Amino acid sequence: MKKYRVKIEIRLKPGILDAEGRAIEKAIERFGVNAQNTRKGKIIEFELYAKEREEVESQVKSLTEKLLINPLTEEYNLKISDE
Amino acid sequence: MKKYRVKIEIRLKPGILDAEGRAIEKAIERFGVNAQNTRKGKIIEFELYAKEREEVESQVKSLTEKLLINPLTEEYNLKISDE
Repeated sequence: MKKYRVKIEIRLKPGILDAEGRAIEKAIERFGVNAQNTRKGKIIEFELYAKEREEVESQVKSLTEKLLINPLTEEYNLKISDE
Repeated sequence: MKKYRVKIEIRLKPGILDAEGRAIEKAIERFGVNAQNTRKGKIIEFELYAKEREEVESQVKSLTEKLLINPLTEEYNLKISDE
């Protein structure tokens, strides 16, 4: 068994209004910095023991799509590294 | 003026209890995947026009430390790319 580090980045899809991102953008503007297209996303990271990278990838894809994201409004990308 | 894309990753510091990360880990376990050290972080992304990368870097460092993170409990890393 090998230890894998998993990093899942979850973002709102481009067309979806990001209310939190807008609030952050206004705060950044008040700070004097002219930010545009501000978006807020999530990172979920964990470690996992498995025999093969392919096993990790298929498990993590499945759990991300079924459990961690809302496929109507969110998209994700996946990084898997071994140690 | 050049357009820069800024990505700020914000994580709880290693010693800080991550209650949300634990809740996610339990959900992942119920899904049948044995995740460990599950942590939840944030991504804040925006675009910015500036003359030089150094200018962007110092502005974004300052606003991140003063506005976006809680320096007692959170740490961050910064990626700046130009187009």
